[in-house]
Amino acid sequence: MHSPQSNSRFEISALDRGMAVDLQRKIDQKTKPLGALGRLESLALQLGLIQRSLAPRVVNPHVLVCAGDHGAAKAGVSAFPQEVTWQMVENFLAGGAAINVLAKQAGMRLVVADAGVAHEFGPREGLANMKVGAGGTANYLEGAAMSDAECATAMANGATLARDFAAAGCNVLGFGEMGIGNTASASLITHCITGLPLADCVGRGTGLDDAGLARKRVLLAQALSAWPERPPINRLPLAEGEVGRGSPHLGKAEAGQDALRVLTRFGGFEIAMLAGAMLAAAEARMTLLIDGFIVTSALLVAAQVSPAILDYCVYAHCSNEAGHRRQLDWLKGRPLLDLGLRLGEGTGAALALPLLNAACAFMNEMASFESAGVSEKTG
Amino acid sequence: MHSPQSNSRFEISALDRGMAVDLQRKIDQKTKPLGALGRLESLALQLGLIQRSLAPRVVNPHVLVCAGDHGAAKAGVSAFPQEVTWQMVENFLAGGAAINVLAKQAGMRLVVADAGVAHEFGPREGLANMKVGAGGTANYLEGAAMSDAECATAMANGATLARDFAAAGCNVLGFGEMGIGNTASASLITHCITGLPLADCVGRGTGLDDAGLARKRVLLAQALSAWPERPPINRLPLAEGEVGRGSPHLGKAEAGQDALRVLTRFGGFEIAMLAGAMLAAAEARMTLLIDGFIVTSALLVAAQVSPAILDYCVYAHCSNEAGHRRQLDWLKGRPLLDLGLRLGEGTGAALALPLLNAACAFMNEMASFESAGVSEKTG
Repeated sequence: MHSPQSNSRFEISALDRGMAVDLQRKIDQKTKPLGALGRLESLALQLGLIQRSLAPRVVNPHVLVCAGDHGAAKAGVSAFPQEVTWQMVENFLAGGAAINVLAKQAGMRLVVADAGVAHEFGPREGLANMKVGAGGTANYLEGAAMSDAECATAMANGATLARDFAAAGCNVLGFGEMGIGNTASASLITHCITGLPLADCVGRGTGLDDAGLARKRVLLAQALSAWPERPPINRLPLAEGEVGRGSPHLGKAEAGQDALRVLTRFGGFEIAMLAGAMLAAAEARMTLLIDGFIVTSALLVAAQVSPAILDYCVYAHCSNEAGHRRQLDWLKGRPLLDLGLRLGEGTGAALALPLLNAACAFMNEMASFESAGVSEKTG
Repeated sequence: MHSPQSNSRFEISALDRGMAVDLQRKIDQKTKPLGALGRLESLALQLGLIQRSLAPRVVNPHVLVCAGDHGAAKAGVSAFPQEVTWQMVENFLAGGAAINVLAKQAGMRLVVADAGVAHEFGPREGLANMKVGAGGTANYLEGAAMSDAECATAMANGATLARDFAAAGCNVLGFGEMGIGNTASASLITHCITGLPLADCVGRGTGLDDAGLARKRVLLAQALSAWPERPPINRLPLAEGEVGRGSPHLGKAEAGQDALRVLTRFGGFEIAMLAGAMLAAAEARMTLLIDGFIVTSALLVAAQVSPAILDYCVYAHCSNEAGHRRQLDWLKGRPLLDLGLRLGEGTGAALALPLLNAACAFMNEMASFESAGVSEKTG
């Protein structure tokens, strides 16, 4: 029998900061004023620690887009009809979606996975068929969105893909999603894990008007009420301070178990698949490029299972979807970009990749004061 | 005889917004929720208006780095000794500086110009010799930094280079600079043109400590007092609202003349050269990628000469140098990136270029709802 519990076997090491002094010295000897490359410097440091290298590199970067349908979508939590999920998967396969264009621009390999879309694609070039269930999740207004076994399978599917990418040499993995109704799912997960007020976690998704937003809020409050057995909120004790400093392991297995119960109740298959892929990617010492609100909800689950995962995360951008900034604040995550995006698909991750490339390039290609014969600071 | 007045001959058209409706329609028909690409959408609109095209493209992008020395540097306004200016030019020529690495990463051609460095480079591959004066500017604590003729020559030199780039098909030009002491110069120019308090315009530059910063403030206040004939502040009446909407032409020649007097008194040759290059670039309908504090001070001068230039500007980033955010606020310019950079050299412009590429790519390569067979919004 599969059970979500089996996912706690991921072995993710908090970053060893032993190399930080040498990395910082290398950064500080580059021909520029101390600290003058700002976030690129902390990014280079983090990548160096993740890769245990003074010469971090972006190798064979991928973006994984997981798609799934939501039983609750039929209740009216989205501005778009449910069939848009499979239509957009077709758009991904045809190369016409935003993530196709932006991943290509960034030099990232795009992998699209059917985590559980209510549509039969048949065998298709470029689509990883990892469908769990036949027609998307069950409606969480009436019960659990998925069974424990389904949740475990979706997570294991994500982990399998991430390990495949690692075997192909990929060391940076961006995450994206497609699923009509999945901002609603992400709102419920975020509320249950962080304890942030539900109202702060609910936004307009793909573009609800005021009436639609009001209806979404009511439906999601009902979804919570329909699950009186929900677990208490476990606040993840994050390390104060900067990314890469290392988060203490939570040490409480219940936190992970509770998060998986929340995922099983409200999740999308695509969210479960993303959480599994993230855990395996961090285990393989990849850098995780976190996109927007839905992807971050998957990270919230993964971080309860294994808090050390946060050391491996780069927050690509702050989405315009209400709730994403609250998630980032809760995680103490500083986004690289703030461009008012709210598209999902991993588009923010693709847009942020050039900054990772730039961080590696300055580490590997810039001259030092000594090698360039440039005088150092005097006053 | 040259005089700065001759620079008012630049003919820059405010953008004709006639195409805006067609551009917006094309953006809105892409397979994404309305507005979901955020700043990339307004960027695509602006590039489309500048290029008068529904299919804007980035062609042969360049970054122009102008270097110059400052007589006032010897008075102690910088943390680094003056010879770092020529040493860094050598570093540019050897390919080891941050802008070499980041321009290469972004696919931009780097052009370095000696606008007036206190050093003889001799004829050198990759260096545009446009030296004005032999040893940098005069000390503005004692008089004008340059003569009217020198200012006009430096501006004309910049214009010549920009026109050369345009002739080579370049349609996006990033601007950068190198010059020990030039944040001090930029502070004085910014104060005199915007009326922002001098204290708000003065920062740590390449890394002054508290005592160094205090001394810089005192010296710059002295520099102001030493010029009782300085012109009154002309507030540029910017259009309210978004970039690209078109700024009304100031219509007052005195504003431009006054700004040129400020430039002549406090400028670096590199700042004058940048201002001239910007005016010619906008005249040639390039997109101007504006870097940090010093480059923006050159833009402040150029915008007084011809306010319509602002329609052509994309603000690459917000620098950590105190004063840059104030400049941007005053210009109502919204930076694309906010990464705590304070390096100059055009590094922010190079880091922002991928976002321009992305804006063009989505316009040209994404499918529409109709072409992809994706259902549109229902509620």
